[in-house]
Amino acid sequence: MHRVSVDQIVWAAGESAVIDGDEAHHALRVKRVRPGERIELMDGRGGIAEGEVVEGDLGAKSRELHVRVTGVRREQPARPRVEIWTAVPKGGRVDEMIDQLAQVGAAAWRPLDTARGVVDPREAKMERLGRIAVEASKQCGRAWRLEIGPKATMDEALRAAPGVRVVVADASGSPWSGAESSEHLRLLIGPEGGWTPEELAAARTANASISRFGPHVMRIETAAVAACAMLVSVAASA
Amino acid sequence: MHRVSVDQIVWAAGESAVIDGDEAHHALRVKRVRPGERIELMDGRGGIAEGEVVEGDLGAKSRELHVRVTGVRREQPARPRVEIWTAVPKGGRVDEMIDQLAQVGAAAWRPLDTARGVVDPREAKMERLGRIAVEASKQCGRAWRLEIGPKATMDEALRAAPGVRVVVADASGSPWSGAESSEHLRLLIGPEGGWTPEELAAARTANASISRFGPHVMRIETAAVAACAMLVSVAASA
Repeated sequence: MHRVSVDQIVWAAGESAVIDGDEAHHALRVKRVRPGERIELMDGRGGIAEGEVVEGDLGAKSRELHVRVTGVRREQPARPRVEIWTAVPKGGRVDEMIDQLAQVGAAAWRPLDTARGVVDPREAKMERLGRIAVEASKQCGRAWRLEIGPKATMDEALRAAPGVRVVVADASGSPWSGAESSEHLRLLIGPEGGWTPEELAAARTANASISRFGPHVMRIETAAVAACAMLVSVAASA
Repeated sequence: MHRVSVDQIVWAAGESAVIDGDEAHHALRVKRVRPGERIELMDGRGGIAEGEVVEGDLGAKSRELHVRVTGVRREQPARPRVEIWTAVPKGGRVDEMIDQLAQVGAAAWRPLDTARGVVDPREAKMERLGRIAVEASKQCGRAWRLEIGPKATMDEALRAAPGVRVVVADASGSPWSGAESSEHLRLLIGPEGGWTPEELAAARTANASISRFGPHVMRIETAAVAACAMLVSVAASA
């Protein structure tokens, strides 16, 4: 079924929704949706309107997509909530990572400022990552889109609210067994050069779990995807 | 520590190893290894020679890397053995997948011929994937390199030797809990269009597990990496 991103779900069942702009263009010209076809409008924050493409609005010059809304529903966010905060991979690898994190079910990603990190994403890159997160979340049918948050320091990362379990990925840790899972997890992944002894000491002081997520050395983006899949799966198998 | 791929470990402790060709060039010119530096020679099939770069062989024109071998060891393959057989992702995505599968610890990958698969890798591509597997395996310090096998049919995939647990990734399955793990796992991942009803029926007839590895739709390469991480982790946490 084709899905369209919208800012807000403002319709009730029986009402008509009119979509314009890029999303309408994509649906009409690229996906070539047809009258009578089922479609979903998603706000990326749990709101979903189901509907049917309305006949007679798909002429060659049509720039608007008309949808007759047949039902509106609201989905709860997934549990556990898994946040992935990482040092930033170089070049296009961060784009791929965001795309993959949306697919495996991370709730949020934030760039983490680490002692040995070398990439500091600028505003333009952060905006691009936000667009990738929206598109990837839509592609894989997420009711709640992957959130892209602002850069965080290690202090912020380790100073978690009650109920948030902070997990630091490091080869020195015990293999992740799921026993330390929680309804709200925050996973920290360090840069290619690894954590400094000071960062690991701060993690221990903050009572974070230090865990490993595989037998080998992984690049940032591979570790993020592999570990996220394991953290998310606790809920699925519980 | 710098690592060098060799065809065979033919030295004993105390002997000298002479490396030439691309691996010597990479070590001398790119990594700029220096006399006295520790180094590992790996055959990718469990054999590892540790040694020290020998003084006096690193002139500007040197094309050979001389290593004094200080010890030889043999590592066992990782358990469980996790084979990943997948429909082939398009374009560069298959390269990325091989690189990531090496990092998360897959033992082997084979391209799988499926009804809805659209990519049929040619000989040149298979050779390139083999080189990627060697390089990625070396990078992440694997004693046993990721094996790249020939194309397989669904019949071959489902007709497993005794002791091999075949797992078919599909959204219709139960979430993977690890309870059906085994010392030797073979994970099958279908094409973007999904398995056909006939393929799923054949999987059930062959008594394969049908399991899901995340809450959302994943592309082939993301599913491969996420599921592999979860299959490998059973051993780590056992």
